[in-house]
This record gives sequence, structure tokens and C-alpha cells, in this order.
Amino acid sequence: MTTVKVTGATRLYAIIGDPIAQVRSPEVFTDRFAAAGIGAVLIPAHVPVDRFDTVVPGLMQLGNLDGLLVTIPFKARMVSFASRLGPAAKCIGAVNALRREADGSWTGDMFDGAGFVRAMERKGALIHGRRVLLFGAGGAGSAIAYELAKAGVAAIAIADPDVGRADALTQTLRDAFPSCDVAGSSNPMGADMIVNASPVGMRMGDELPGDIGPLRADTLVGDVIVSDSPTPLIQHALRTGCTHVTGRDMHSGQVEALIGFFAPASAPLTTTQRVS
Amino acid sequence: MTTVKVTGATRLYAIIGDPIAQVRSPEVFTDRFAAAGIGAVLIPAHVPVDRFDTVVPGLMQLGNLDGLLVTIPFKARMVSFASRLGPAAKCIGAVNALRREADGSWTGDMFDGAGFVRAMERKGALIHGRRVLLFGAGGAGSAIAYELAKAGVAAIAIADPDVGRADALTQTLRDAFPSCDVAGSSNPMGADMIVNASPVGMRMGDELPGDIGPLRADTLVGDVIVSDSPTPLIQHALRTGCTHVTGRDMHSGQVEALIGFFAPASAPLTTTQRVS
Repeated sequence: MTTVKVTGATRLYAIIGDPIAQVRSPEVFTDRFAAAGIGAVLIPAHVPVDRFDTVVPGLMQLGNLDGLLVTIPFKARMVSFASRLGPAAKCIGAVNALRREADGSWTGDMFDGAGFVRAMERKGALIHGRRVLLFGAGGAGSAIAYELAKAGVAAIAIADPDVGRADALTQTLRDAFPSCDVAGSSNPMGADMIVNASPVGMRMGDELPGDIGPLRADTLVGDVIVSDSPTPLIQHALRTGCTHVTGRDMHSGQVEALIGFFAPASAPLTTTQRVS
Repeated sequence: MTTVKVTGATRLYAIIGDPIAQVRSPEVFTDRFAAAGIGAVLIPAHVPVDRFDTVVPGLMQLGNLDGLLVTIPFKARMVSFASRLGPAAKCIGAVNALRREADGSWTGDMFDGAGFVRAMERKGALIHGRRVLLFGAGGAGSAIAYELAKAGVAAIAIADPDVGRADALTQTLRDAFPSCDVAGSSNPMGADMIVNASPVGMRMGDELPGDIGPLRADTLVGDVIVSDSPTPLIQHALRTGCTHVTGRDMHSGQVEALIGFFAPASAPLTTTQRVS
């Protein structure tokens, strides 16, 4: 059980979202902070969408709040609260983490894509050269597309009911990764990696997010949705025997990176600094 | 050790103040919430004085924040954030607790005075008929004066370097408690109860808050200052053998009342409702 002693001197981190009760970050990060000797707790902060403009500036000015995680639906909206952005956040225009610097300014970055790629790598998947069909060009989809392109996939086709959003992401990726073949289309084009970053699959009775073509055993499958039972896409992957990652895997995949982002001085457990 | 499992569904209470690291409420109340089966944590919220107007409205609009404790220097300033006030808060114009009602409105009240009286009673002191010399007419002093008058003291003399503040409290008490002899004066007038609600005694090297006259063994002594070593006034009480309460006693004295205020349905551990 994740427990923490909260005192007057405890430092705060918060995850903001609407809804919030389903998030697992408070348990995961409070535990990790304790393990790293950081006297901090990560609290759930329910920011109702219509009160965002009042709540977020207030939270960020708390004297003992050192960082924020950001979940649906605020990942794009929070960009304007950062004084500076990391490369992934700058390219795709969304953040899922912000930390307060010593001078009081805020640095934001986006770790969803890195978490997805890390989770795939942990399962032994080879990403380089893949032809990706991606459903969803929102915050998570953009972040994953960015990191997949950075990891050297050969092509990405992007499907989103909001065609303008798909086109904008297509152009962003083409500019950033000229050697990747990026198309704003839902054509499976012989994809050997299928990623769902749309909300389809979140509700009972949802079908696949779109035409995924035939799955082969060596197709890589990913679905950002966090759920207790497999989504329709993950069910297909299980039946076909595909290597796959879930939303939970994606979140687990970014925990190390986020701890390092939040507490650069305390977190380098895997670097040579800890050897001495 | 006070520990709590913080999840996405955990409800929040916060204590606001500047500074905040020294407060003990997070430990005390988180423990009590757990004992009462309430899935909530009380977090320290450092509200720098110059950011009050941004931080407090933001905090109060968090969807999962159910209540606030208020400490120095915000007890008077928070009155305007309450939709309605309890009797002590209404009379003295200060709150140290606010709770969110089902309709989203906020109810505020002041428990410092009740905590002080309760702490005295726990030590077996008889308050009715006492002649009180009170130093400090701020939030804590006002709250204590109100509850002492309500408990039937015969007289209260109020000393404060801010004469206007002392006079205002004098008038308030005269209006509310016509049978109590209230004087805005530092004349000991044969006091048999001495209360320090001023900041004097908080710093190393501080002397007594003023002329306390001769202490007798049956004089009651109280000091609102929370400190690890006895304040000068408490040292006098110890030497003379007076029944006395400290700031810590005052805070302990109001915990039950605050739990009942925050969670009326869950807290009546001492009422007959729990017998069935």
C-alpha cells in the first residue's frame, strides 16, 4: 500500500484533469517520491473545465507546489502556462508535466510519447522502419507520433474525425522529420504498427477506432486507453498474438522519465553520479 | 505515524497560511479522517500573502476540495469567502475553518475560542465568573474573548498596542454580552485569568506581553503561542503552579469540533446516533 506522512513541510505535486478520480498517478508517484527520499505527495486536483481559468493560476502560485502532471482535457491548454518547453512539447504543442524552477518560472514537456515507445521497447519490439497507422491526432496521438518519428519509423498515416487536426499534425511531423513518410489518411497502406490514441474503446460497446486492415502476428499494437478489461483493439492483438502496449503500459513507461524531470538532483539512480 | 493512501479519488482539505511548514493540522486531521473512515487528506497550502487573491479563489474552486483550515495571517481576510458564518465568526469577523456545502456554497466559522475554553475545561478549570485580562485583540484574541464571554466570565479587560482594534472588540463584546463587564484597558483590575493572544512570546528573548500583575496559584493562564519550549507567560504559570493551557492545547481542544464541522454525517462519534 502506498502511504505517506503528510506534514506542514510536505511539498506538493498535483495532477490536474477533469474527471480525476480514475487517475493512478497519486499512488505511483507518491510511492516513488518516498523511495527517492523526496518529502512530497502527489495529489489529485479536480479542475472542472469551466473553472480552469480560475483554478490553474491559483494552484500554480501555491508556495509549496513544485510540479504538475496534466491529463485530459488540458494537455494543449497548459502549454501557455510554461515559460519554456522541452522539444516534444514544443513540436506538438501539448504538455503533460510542468515543474517549477528555482526562479519561480515553469518548464513544461510531454512524456506520453516517450512512455509509449519505452513500453514497446520493454516488450522487445523493434520500432525502427515500421509503417504506422495512428488513430487520433490529439495530445496523446501527437506525442506518440512525434516519438515514433524520432525513433525512426518509416511512415505514419494519421486518422482523425477532425480532418484539420490530422492535417496540422501531418504538416508538423513532415517539417520536423523530413525522412518520415507522413500522410493524413486512414489508409492502412500495409501498416505493421497500429496505434489507437483516440477515445474510441473507452466506453462499453465501443468498436475498433477504424479500419485496421488485417493484423499479422508481427504487427505491433498500441492503445492509449486505460481500462481494466482489454479494449477492442487490444482484444484483436491478443487473438492474433501481436506484441502490444496498453494505456497503463504507456503510463508506466514514462514514470522514470517524469521522476527525473521533477527532481533532477534526486532521481539519477541510473546514472554514474550515484556510483561515487 | 500518520500515513494515508492518496489515490485519484481522495478528497482534499487544505490548511492555508503564510508560513505553513510549522503547522501540525495535516498530521492531526489526516489521521482523524482515516479513523472516521473518511477518504480524505489535509494538505498544507502555502499561500504567500502577496498571492492571496490569486491562490485562494483557485483553491476554493477545485472540484475535490471539501474544506479549508485557516491560519495566520488570513483569519479575518477569509470571512468574505464564506456564503454564511457561524455565530462566533459572525460576531468577531474571523474564521479558521470553511466547508463546502452540497450546493457549492461555503460555510465558515471560528473554533479557536471554543478550543481554548475546551482545553481549560479539560484541565478542570472553572471559567464562569472569572475576571480576564486578555492581551491581543486580533483573530485569536477576539475568538477567545467571545467564547469566554459566552462561558460566563464576569469581566474582560483587553490590551492591544492597536488601541482602535481593542476598542472595536470591546464594543463588539459589550453588544453581544451585555452582562459581561468589558473594558478596553490593560489594567489588571484584580484579574484571576490571564490570556496571551498576542504574538509576544513567539520569538526567543521575548518578555511577558504586558503587566500581568501578581499571579496566584488559582489564577488561570493561557497562551495561544505554539512552541516547543514554554513561553515567558507559561513559565510564570509553571512557577506559580497555575492551571494553564498552551497554543497546542487550544488546537487540540478544537479538533473534535472541527471534525464535526467538516463531516457532520461521519463525525458524531460521541452522539447517540452511533449507539444504534
